[in-house]
Amino acid sequence: MSTMRAVQVVGYHEKLRMTEVPVPTPTGPFDVVVRIGGAGVCRTDLHILEGQWAEKSNVTLPYTIGHENAGWVHAVGSAVTNVQEGDKVIVHPLITCGLCRACRSGDDVHCEINQFPGIDTNGGYAEYLKTSARSVVKLDDSLEPADVAALADAGLTAYHAAAKASRHLTPRDRVVVIGAGGLGHIGIQVLKALTAAEIVVVDRNADAVKLALSIGADHGVVADGTHIEQVLELTGGQGGEAVIDFVGEGGATAEGIAMLRQAGNYHVVGYGENIDVPTIDIVSSEINVIGNLVGSYNDLCDLMALAARGSVVLHTAKYALDDFQSAIDDLDAGTVRGRAILTP
Amino acid sequence: MSTMRAVQVVGYHEKLRMTEVPVPTPTGPFDVVVRIGGAGVCRTDLHILEGQWAEKSNVTLPYTIGHENAGWVHAVGSAVTNVQEGDKVIVHPLITCGLCRACRSGDDVHCEINQFPGIDTNGGYAEYLKTSARSVVKLDDSLEPADVAALADAGLTAYHAAAKASRHLTPRDRVVVIGAGGLGHIGIQVLKALTAAEIVVVDRNADAVKLALSIGADHGVVADGTHIEQVLELTGGQGGEAVIDFVGEGGATAEGIAMLRQAGNYHVVGYGENIDVPTIDIVSSEINVIGNLVGSYNDLCDLMALAARGSVVLHTAKYALDDFQSAIDDLDAGTVRGRAILTP
Amino acid sequence: MSTMRAVQVVGYHEKLRMTEVPVPTPTGPFDVVVRIGGAGVCRTDLHILEGQWAEKSNVTLPYTIGHENAGWVHAVGSAVTNVQEGDKVIVHPLITCGLCRACRSGDDVHCEINQFPGIDTNGGYAEYLKTSARSVVKLDDSLEPADVAALADAGLTAYHAAAKASRHLTPRDRVVVIGAGGLGHIGIQVLKALTAAEIVVVDRNADAVKLALSIGADHGVVADGTHIEQVLELTGGQGGEAVIDFVGEGGATAEGIAMLRQAGNYHVVGYGENIDVPTIDIVSSEINVIGNLVGSYNDLCDLMALAARGSVVLHTAKYALDDFQSAIDDLDAGTVRGRAILTP
Amino acid sequence: MSTMRAVQVVGYHEKLRMTEVPVPTPTGPFDVVVRIGGAGVCRTDLHILEGQWAEKSNVTLPYTIGHENAGWVHAVGSAVTNVQEGDKVIVHPLITCGLCRACRSGDDVHCEINQFPGIDTNGGYAEYLKTSARSVVKLDDSLEPADVAALADAGLTAYHAAAKASRHLTPRDRVVVIGAGGLGHIGIQVLKALTAAEIVVVDRNADAVKLALSIGADHGVVADGTHIEQVLELTGGQGGEAVIDFVGEGGATAEGIAMLRQAGNYHVVGYGENIDVPTIDIVSSEINVIGNLVGSYNDLCDLMALAARGSVVLHTAKYALDDFQSAIDDLDAGTVRGRAILTP
Repeated sequence: MSTMRAVQVVGYHEKLRMTEVPVPTPTGPFDVVVRIGGAGVCRTDLHILEGQWAEKSNVTLPYTIGHENAGWVHAVGSAVTNVQEGDKVIVHPLITCGLCRACRSGDDVHCEINQFPGIDTNGGYAEYLKTSARSVVKLDDSLEPADVAALADAGLTAYHAAAKASRHLTPRDRVVVIGAGGLGHIGIQVLKALTAAEIVVVDRNADAVKLALSIGADHGVVADGTHIEQVLELTGGQGGEAVIDFVGEGGATAEGIAMLRQAGNYHVVGYGENIDVPTIDIVSSEINVIGNLVGSYNDLCDLMALAARGSVVLHTAKYALDDFQSAIDDLDAGTVRGRAILTP
Repeated sequence: MSTMRAVQVVGYHEKLRMTEVPVPTPTGPFDVVVRIGGAGVCRTDLHILEGQWAEKSNVTLPYTIGHENAGWVHAVGSAVTNVQEGDKVIVHPLITCGLCRACRSGDDVHCEINQFPGIDTNGGYAEYLKTSARSVVKLDDSLEPADVAALADAGLTAYHAAAKASRHLTPRDRVVVIGAGGLGHIGIQVLKALTAAEIVVVDRNADAVKLALSIGADHGVVADGTHIEQVLELTGGQGGEAVIDFVGEGGATAEGIAMLRQAGNYHVVGYGENIDVPTIDIVSSEINVIGNLVGSYNDLCDLMALAARGSVVLHTAKYALDDFQSAIDDLDAGTVRGRAILTP
Repeated sequence: MSTMRAVQVVGYHEKLRMTEVPVPTPTGPFDVVVRIGGAGVCRTDLHILEGQWAEKSNVTLPYTIGHENAGWVHAVGSAVTNVQEGDKVIVHPLITCGLCRACRSGDDVHCEINQFPGIDTNGGYAEYLKTSARSVVKLDDSLEPADVAALADAGLTAYHAAAKASRHLTPRDRVVVIGAGGLGHIGIQVLKALTAAEIVVVDRNADAVKLALSIGADHGVVADGTHIEQVLELTGGQGGEAVIDFVGEGGATAEGIAMLRQAGNYHVVGYGENIDVPTIDIVSSEINVIGNLVGSYNDLCDLMALAARGSVVLHTAKYALDDFQSAIDDLDAGTVRGRAILTP
Repeated sequence: MSTMRAVQVVGYHEKLRMTEVPVPTPTGPFDVVVRIGGAGVCRTDLHILEGQWAEKSNVTLPYTIGHENAGWVHAVGSAVTNVQEGDKVIVHPLITCGLCRACRSGDDVHCEINQFPGIDTNGGYAEYLKTSARSVVKLDDSLEPADVAALADAGLTAYHAAAKASRHLTPRDRVVVIGAGGLGHIGIQVLKALTAAEIVVVDRNADAVKLALSIGADHGVVADGTHIEQVLELTGGQGGEAVIDFVGEGGATAEGIAMLRQAGNYHVVGYGENIDVPTIDIVSSEINVIGNLVGSYNDLCDLMALAARGSVVLHTAKYALDDFQSAIDDLDAGTVRGRAILTP
């Protein structure tokens, strides 16, 4: 039995530890083992270490962390027909059953018996990852695993929200994006590709606003206390037909609703605070609050199509797998430019 | 100039007063004057008298109250082509412009310059009402103004929410209705007509639950503290794919969300309290909070089609216009069976 | 190795032959073997014997015919989790891959590598049938396999078309159904359950029209040469917002389009003749011609939900499996009342 | 009473004649008189002269031709609130009632009692045109009437079809455009703005294909007899998820359907020949044939939003109103580069 390096959670409020563990093998007919080419380092990983997910995931320690993965197919189970050894793939973050009503409807994210590698079972800070035939998307020749790995979760979430919002937007509409950071800057590129609506971006950071303008935003607003007024002015005094809130804390939800037009959709993506709004306001403005989780397998395929033609580009900072602690430290310190990726 | 009787708001925290005022005449090309056959007495009318709408409506006192109206066309403006004198009509509560983007999209309720007779201009507790060609819906021969007047606002709101929810419901879905009172009992009939989903009704009042079952609900649950569990049991432990909340106060919003399935739609119709929910819950369950205002002109036409074939029936208690104070008092005392209607 | 009786196609333009063949066993991880409780005898079976499907299906003779099946789960492959031995099930007519884009979108009918038992591989005129975990729908306790078997294909096709049409219908609309025979009488029941639109049914057979009226049609029209005019009269001179054509031959397509309103949807279900219509008519009326194949797995689940509550009822004539020739002969002679079902 | 120059149809198979007629004035409350800034010269105008529309339009000769108009508001009726004298506007080709069900649904193109200036009443080859408040769209400062006039009908039709198709397209889909001429080259620009699907353009003219590639098409195919195969090759052997046929004659319909994927939408825009397709093909491929008429008022507003930001550009050749015969002759001879526009 061959072994591999894997970075594991060994205890909450403890540092991650590099260990030697067996290389996973396909045991079920739909199993796919992927040789990791890139594993995204995500803020959720920090939260896992702080124990925030301990109760929800109920995972047994130690286990391998890492839920944003891409690489090459290494081995497949007996019933796998969609990929073969050597295929370049990105890995959807969930392993889904394929048989429940949600899976049968293309809404696999709500699979009744899903697994989440990196959260509740072994993930991708390692040389190999075990996932499922239902979770791998073949990559275009032009894309490399380490470059797109972070699209597997953070990017996919942004895509999902932006695509959902776009379905209702027309060339006369305005969509307000709150937060032009990790998710937001993907969301803006996706909006640019999918809708002709005007894109108004709000962020506290003037550099983030500048970046937003360079990748497709029509208007940028630095959140300086006058930003609600500025957005209203940019939207004919009415607010946007859609608001996509990639922040969800620090007052963003109330501000988001204040920047929303009658009959508009306020999309919640970022989270942290409570939404606290009078029902009379919901009713009299007839607005909707729309939840957004990570995207489906189909969303990931669509996002990869955009990435393949260069419509969505992600900035990455690569770290060798052995330097995992630097990546974690840099993320914690806020010094990563773009998205940190571990490359074995 | 002929005159008519009209019941007017003469001051807040004062009683309504019967007065003699001029019969309205068409002054604009699209004006329609309706001889009132029935005017619904609504809880909102009590709130108006309490001054709750004074600031919002900014209406000048005295003015004639009453926003649920039906009758016969009495006179029309020069450009009116859709009705003529003598036509039996129900009156949509809003007067809309027909030219703004909302009006041009069939979404007239969000008309940018609408008027609301009975709220911000003269209403229907009177012998005649001035409205617009855009607001009158011809009634089927089988329907009488006094029987359907209360469908003009309360019924229309219930229709709008039930129809919106139905668009996403399939025979395997469950829709949970909170509140089987005035709006709820219309909503249940509409759901029965428009969707094959199972209908679960929750109300504190056992009689209301019994009524609900007799008009189409598949399951009735008396809200006795175990109702959330009961609803979850009736929905496979998952909650309903849609919840329509006709209450919106007294804890209904938190209960409604607790009875909602992943990816479900929680429809707010009744109002009073705040919705106060963690963004993490919105995101992780990927649920939506859907606002519902009164229905559009098209909704009213559809509702009248259902009424004409007996699919929606409203119980009414009729009062002569001169007995308006009894109607108000009975409504305030909660002793009206069904919906109180003034008939001149 | 145990054996079973199976009715096989041994040659085109020859009679079916009862044979003894091995009982199928699960060989793939998702295989499910069903003990047949009922197998529908369908007009397509006659066409198969006439060789009409020989080229399309490319099936190797002899093979077991029968594509409308229901029964009890007899054995399952290693990865099957959604059913277990003894479960009462109806069998979706296709075996689908679960991995192609169509399958991942809930649109399994367009699976890129599907199999069709009874058409291109062994079917259900037998004691046992091999299908897939992706094709079995558990039945409600109240339903028996022999009673619902014919809903697996004929009923499912009718459901699919009626449900698709219903998504665009409102209480003010009219839907015109052409043909109240095998598929049509299911379609009418489905429309009654799913939409509040008025249902107008046209059939050459006065008895079929009478049946249609008894199961939910609002208006029945005997096709006697004046039927287009009659339908136009019933639809305000405009035609229906939707037409569902379960006939598709003998002039039905031109008649269907003549009974269609501007901007309406003409649904093709039955087939035989060509649609031959000037593009100028398609454009100036802005009508749509909508194709309809058999329904998806989700459609079958929805149809079973309707059947479980008695909203869709199928009339059947049962024959012992050994009497298969009588069933075929009766169908060919047009003397089956309802749908012929073989019960082993 | 002041007079103006107007170019009129005085007889079929006769030349148009310049005449002096009264300047129109607002007589109805919603009338708007527009001073023409540009009037598009359209192939339909040639057809009118050939008498092809005589029976359909039932217009009384002489009358003023021209149905693609833009200019400045000159006078308004008493009830007009959305524009005022001096406003720069483009004119939707239909005058609609605003009260029928179609108008109330935002689907004004199917207005039950519409008028069509230039076809069945006086049009815009003149100094002034009478239309309605419901038909004028205010132009952005950056747009000039003579530059956008031809978007009022030809462009609007292309927009309508492209926008309708786009609603179902994702980044993984391919849309095949047949015909990159007058309508097609607008349609391609609209598709580029509204969808991330790949755009494949087919035209007999290599220059048109080249133009298509320069304005947003991803692939261009010269129709040389191998074009169906080429399109299939570009679409994974399956055909496009949507085909938009701006030609509709000379065999385009059969070719369009041959280039369509299973479950795809074939959009008819151009017309001339019959669609003649076996129902079995419609059913077994489950394809749809989608009619497309001119766009709605909302479509025109959306198209103007795209034009204002430069996403849709139209090439025009301007002629003085007095040179109307040259414009007609050039169009007939096929020597107009872009779209001919009359400018008074």
